[in-house]
Amino acid sequence: MKAQPLHTPSAADLAEAAQIFDRLRELTADVVGVSRASYGPGETRGLELIADIARQHGLDVAWDPAANLLVSLPGRETNEPAVLIGSHMDSVPRGGNFDGAAGIIAGLLCLLRMKRSGKVPPRTVRVIGLRGEESAWFGICYLGSRALFGALTAEDLASRHRDTSRPLSEYMRESGAAVDLILAGRPILDPNAVAAYYELHIEQGPVMVARNLPVGIVTGIRGNIRYPAAKCLGEAGHSGAVPRWLRHDAVLATADLLHRMDEHWRVLLERGTDLVMTAGIFSTHPAEHAATRIPNEVTFSIDIRSQDKGTLESVRQLLLQECAAVARERRVEFALGRLLFTEPAHMDQALVRRLGSICDGLGVPTEKMPSGAGHDAAEFANHEIPSAMIFIRNEHGSHNPDEAMDIADFLLGTEVLYHAVSEDD
Amino acid sequence: MKAQPLHTPSAADLAEAAQIFDRLRELTADVVGVSRASYGPGETRGLELIADIARQHGLDVAWDPAANLLVSLPGRETNEPAVLIGSHMDSVPRGGNFDGAAGIIAGLLCLLRMKRSGKVPPRTVRVIGLRGEESAWFGICYLGSRALFGALTAEDLASRHRDTSRPLSEYMRESGAAVDLILAGRPILDPNAVAAYYELHIEQGPVMVARNLPVGIVTGIRGNIRYPAAKCLGEAGHSGAVPRWLRHDAVLATADLLHRMDEHWRVLLERGTDLVMTAGIFSTHPAEHAATRIPNEVTFSIDIRSQDKGTLESVRQLLLQECAAVARERRVEFALGRLLFTEPAHMDQALVRRLGSICDGLGVPTEKMPSGAGHDAAEFANHEIPSAMIFIRNEHGSHNPDEAMDIADFLLGTEVLYHAVSEDD
Repeated sequence: MKAQPLHTPSAADLAEAAQIFDRLRELTADVVGVSRASYGPGETRGLELIADIARQHGLDVAWDPAANLLVSLPGRETNEPAVLIGSHMDSVPRGGNFDGAAGIIAGLLCLLRMKRSGKVPPRTVRVIGLRGEESAWFGICYLGSRALFGALTAEDLASRHRDTSRPLSEYMRESGAAVDLILAGRPILDPNAVAAYYELHIEQGPVMVARNLPVGIVTGIRGNIRYPAAKCLGEAGHSGAVPRWLRHDAVLATADLLHRMDEHWRVLLERGTDLVMTAGIFSTHPAEHAATRIPNEVTFSIDIRSQDKGTLESVRQLLLQECAAVARERRVEFALGRLLFTEPAHMDQALVRRLGSICDGLGVPTEKMPSGAGHDAAEFANHEIPSAMIFIRNEHGSHNPDEAMDIADFLLGTEVLYHAVSEDD
Repeated sequence: MKAQPLHTPSAADLAEAAQIFDRLRELTADVVGVSRASYGPGETRGLELIADIARQHGLDVAWDPAANLLVSLPGRETNEPAVLIGSHMDSVPRGGNFDGAAGIIAGLLCLLRMKRSGKVPPRTVRVIGLRGEESAWFGICYLGSRALFGALTAEDLASRHRDTSRPLSEYMRESGAAVDLILAGRPILDPNAVAAYYELHIEQGPVMVARNLPVGIVTGIRGNIRYPAAKCLGEAGHSGAVPRWLRHDAVLATADLLHRMDEHWRVLLERGTDLVMTAGIFSTHPAEHAATRIPNEVTFSIDIRSQDKGTLESVRQLLLQECAAVARERRVEFALGRLLFTEPAHMDQALVRRLGSICDGLGVPTEKMPSGAGHDAAEFANHEIPSAMIFIRNEHGSHNPDEAMDIADFLLGTEVLYHAVSEDD
């Protein structure tokens, strides 16, 4: 049983939103799901679709120096800081159609509604279609939003594409970005020129389905510490001929390490610590491994997330200690490789209250909740821009083709967003 | 300091052996090491080299219905059961030049020596150059020797090549084997026609180097239970957005399983059980895995070896119990897939004593030792043929291009073999 909100979307609104999502899916379909690579062709096609619709309806369309899309509707006071509605267009490989794109389409629908009705918002409202939020392609996240703040480093720009190994800088240049300016660390966006940043996004976990909530209001975003390409190095040998005490087995060593970290995780959760931990990649060498060969090399990833920066650092220290202990006991070496760090972020409390009041006024059932996944909103919040996020209920998680968001839920969230950006603070 | 044996090989013998090994290496070289695929072109080239040398020296050359090479020197009593000297010509992909081939070349050198000196052995001595001992190519081992005893099943013959996925039966046919006869389970070799089977092989572990022994005498061969392609199946999810209690993490589950089995192994060793255990393959799905995705699938292998059949079965039961426990606790499924079983084998005690006496007579330092690795000799022994093996010291293990056997050590072992096959029992 879904709770029934007071506000219900019209059939025309449902059809328009569904049509845009369907067109986007067609334009970026893969064997299964959609693939919109960061600074790649699918992402560009998606943003151009949004730009086309915006232009057809007389909205201002522009591209910023990081090749993010800007669609604007001037407000009453064009000299005042603007309100931004942002989200990302890229997807993971063979991902779902809603993760990221829903937020851009929600923003577009808000602008179209104001444009059609002649509503002039108090401040200029600008939808920003961001690029490169997903780390799946270049190993690092928030590319488009970090470029806004001059925060992409030369090392970031040299990151290699997962399939082609070509550097990010080439992909950015081909997408129309001013790479030299970005490489110089020159900010594209002045935080003082932004009154507020709103982002609507599907929930990527199972909580809202479990709690029967169409719309959620995000209070904060977990940060993370990540080793995307760690290695354990041992020594190969015949699986039958080397006794246990002479082995340097990289698989058993890495399994031991993960088992120890998993135990720490369990204990920390019992103490009430906010923490998740994932080893999404764990691979012996495909060209060399065999059932009868003691494995000498494992490549693995570790992703540690928490809303608390101190927890992230403590767990990282635990990881380093356990690596040293396992290496000593099992005669292997760990080389954790490049460390990526994304700060946790807090949403603006005034904006959170405002979204809560709007939901109450519309009769939209909602709750405040943290975001386990990272979002561009964290970049804006950590650059002192008051930021807020609206979550939309979604089944089957994200980063897979089975994402399932009801368009009716989406339009409820969009309604909340519309009120937030079109009315006086 | 190497112990100095009484017998030392001549410069001419050293040169002849080195030349044959060098020629074989040239004929079967890969990017690194050698590749002589089971029932593949490198294996055939290697066996043809042996056949050519044998023919040049007037030895009888033939190929059996499993396309194994036979080189024979008639003995005094041609109606009596023959003495076999066997080993395999295939290697693992990018493997070393000595694993397998050394035994065939040793046999050839024994025949050449008798032929040149006009020595007529008491029984016919036949070198058998076996095919397909390595499981690296088709996932199953002892192909050539199992075919001798009619022990290859239809399922075995349907096994797929690791690179091309074509079935073994096609490769056997292309190598000249009578596949229909083999498929019918018709034995090629009558065990009663074999007086003894000898196999010379490099040691594949580190023991002989550590103990400073050029030659070892094998007492038994570990059997194994192997799951070459087991799977753990969980559920994908966003690495930040799914709480621990809702996860179905295939990597942490498999790590937990291996950690438990590793603990059992440690305890069983302390009780004096003969056991080794290896998970040589452990891989998340390369097209789908990512640092930010809860892993839903792991492919892994388990290889359990012991000289005791009962131990193999007990440890397999432990594995099944632990799979069930981990699956329940971590909400995943284990699908262990095809089970391969190779029986442990005991070498013939009379032959072991005979080899020991020969070593003593020649002043060759030796010890009796079990073989951790599997060998074709296990097939012969398990078909009631009195069997024995001579190990040659070898550095850096096997199944890699860095195998390092001294030709002088090899010729010491060959000398022992020569006396065993050329003299009266």
